Amino acid sequence: MRILIAGFGTVGQGFAEVLAARKEFLRNRYGKDVRIVCAMDSKTFAADPKGLEPLELVATKKATGKVGKETYTDSVKVMDSVEYDLLVEVSPTDIKTGGVGLKNIRNALEHGKDVITVNKGPLALNFSELIGLAKKNKCKFRFEGSVGGAMPIINLCRENLVGENIKSIRGILNGTCNYILSKMDNGQPFEQALKEAQQMGYAETDPTNDVEGYDAACKVVILANSIFGRNVTFSDVNITGIRSITAEAVALASSHNMVIRLIGEVSDTKLEVSPRLIPKGHPLGLSGTLNAAQITTDLAGPVTVTGHGAGRIETASAILSDFISIMDDRD
Amino acid sequence: MRILIAGFGTVGQGFAEVLAARKEFLRNRYGKDVRIVCAMDSKTFAADPKGLEPLELVATKKATGKVGKETYTDSVKVMDSVEYDLLVEVSPTDIKTGGVGLKNIRNALEHGKDVITVNKGPLALNFSELIGLAKKNKCKFRFEGSVGGAMPIINLCRENLVGENIKSIRGILNGTCNYILSKMDNGQPFEQALKEAQQMGYAETDPTNDVEGYDAACKVVILANSIFGRNVTFSDVNITGIRSITAEAVALASSHNMVIRLIGEVSDTKLEVSPRLIPKGHPLGLSGTLNAAQITTDLAGPVTVTGHGAGRIETASAILSDFISIMDDRD
Repeated sequence: MRILIAGFGTVGQGFAEVLAARKEFLRNRYGKDVRIVCAMDSKTFAADPKGLEPLELVATKKATGKVGKETYTDSVKVMDSVEYDLLVEVSPTDIKTGGVGLKNIRNALEHGKDVITVNKGPLALNFSELIGLAKKNKCKFRFEGSVGGAMPIINLCRENLVGENIKSIRGILNGTCNYILSKMDNGQPFEQALKEAQQMGYAETDPTNDVEGYDAACKVVILANSIFGRNVTFSDVNITGIRSITAEAVALASSHNMVIRLIGEVSDTKLEVSPRLIPKGHPLGLSGTLNAAQITTDLAGPVTVTGHGAGRIETASAILSDFISIMDDRD
Repeated sequence: MRILIAGFGTVGQGFAEVLAARKEFLRNRYGKDVRIVCAMDSKTFAADPKGLEPLELVATKKATGKVGKETYTDSVKVMDSVEYDLLVEVSPTDIKTGGVGLKNIRNALEHGKDVITVNKGPLALNFSELIGLAKKNKCKFRFEGSVGGAMPIINLCRENLVGENIKSIRGILNGTCNYILSKMDNGQPFEQALKEAQQMGYAETDPTNDVEGYDAACKVVILANSIFGRNVTFSDVNITGIRSITAEAVALASSHNMVIRLIGEVSDTKLEVSPRLIPKGHPLGLSGTLNAAQITTDLAGPVTVTGHGAGRIETASAILSDFISIMDDRD
């Protein structure tokens, strides 16, 4: 199995480290080695058909800021020059146009390659096109880590809950908002909680994507298309962020034994991100940066899964689970 | 696929209803019908190689108290007289001897039949013997519903988290205790909360199995043996129940923003059921009758899953998920 990694930031490096850590496991499970034959960052790349050493790639990137010695301007030309079986697309998310990630995924699928991505932009904007391409070219296309990082939501629905009729999914899909709202539970006003989230590195300098609910909306779109078979895009989501939540509203909720959480909800008819009242002690009444998703089914009832929504190794672990699932299918 | 159902109480009837509800789904997925060729309750049975109508079995049982017209004294003789492929063993749990369930499972595995059970007794007492029998006779042996009912814990660990090193599992494994402790959060003393649990039908007249932690301990044993590959039994678990928890202790915990929950914990070295302090807003700080399990792994970090730990259809849904997994493996 020859892997091409497109994007060598936090998650790309994390995945290289995970591959190194699971070298023996994968060799034992599949009786052959997994090779990274090419790794690209935004401007440079390294390629070797015999396989690149994952930890050397990480060390090089850390020391020089570049993953390879070769430079490029068009990522697709690099991809076309390499023989590979599976693209791991983890370049930066562009939720306005899909960016280079969309171009890379499209190119790989058109050439019959399997694809794993955690890149929300292409999935939120061009889901049905990409799924269609994958079907047409008989490729596997997986994206567990794009929703909730290490929280196993998509594969849980597809595999463990395959006998269930899934009625709805409601979840905490943005850890930054949940951190801010948890701080507000303790009496902090929004602006102060946001500032603390920025100091902790949870929120970016421009926190719009998180606090306005755009990031959660992308995940709602991915769940709607992949689990509910809908054909929707980012602009179809009704979005309300958390900027206008006051300390008074949080205190009032608390006096009724409730917390306010930003909840994304998907069903056959619903597509929404908005602040909701959640009872304390409810599976979605979580504090901190965790993500959570409550899947309501006809037989099992509500099943909730919780996990780290971000993080280098955590997100890479979701890529590993997709990778194992693809390899198992191939066997 | 010919199914023999041993035990036709709540869960057995629930599974028959689930099979009826998923008739089309199973036919489409596997291109053939699933037949119940025999159903036994504690004294009677019905058998038909052409298949029994699931909903008729349930109606007969409800109307007459008996699943069939034939009576028996030795369940194993009935099993030996029927041609079947898979035993669904859902007779009443006996955590002292394993009871008739142990005898039935042993017999099925010895004859090369696949087995699905939710019967905690045989699993907690004779796990390694039964797994050994299954291996020797190349049978599939599944028991997702034995821990946490509809909460998908065992299959989650085996399938979605197969690339992870699982360090520990900590969980709320008894919904009755969690209901009682949740009521105590609101200021009720233990005896009053227990009485309410009994009135609601969550606790039995003799609540020993639940409140002394024995039921949770059975589940800890099943997780230890199946997920951690240990070879332990019920008597190896350090057990403390919830009887001695006072209203004062709960109030003191609350003043520190904590709740008290009965937690089962398993790792390579630990095997324990005891009341623990859990921060409010933590994934294990749940209220009500839900079950929850937090799986701590080396890559994904903590992943928590929550669901209904009991219930006719909920537990039957866990049997369905095992059934689908066995059928998928056969295909």
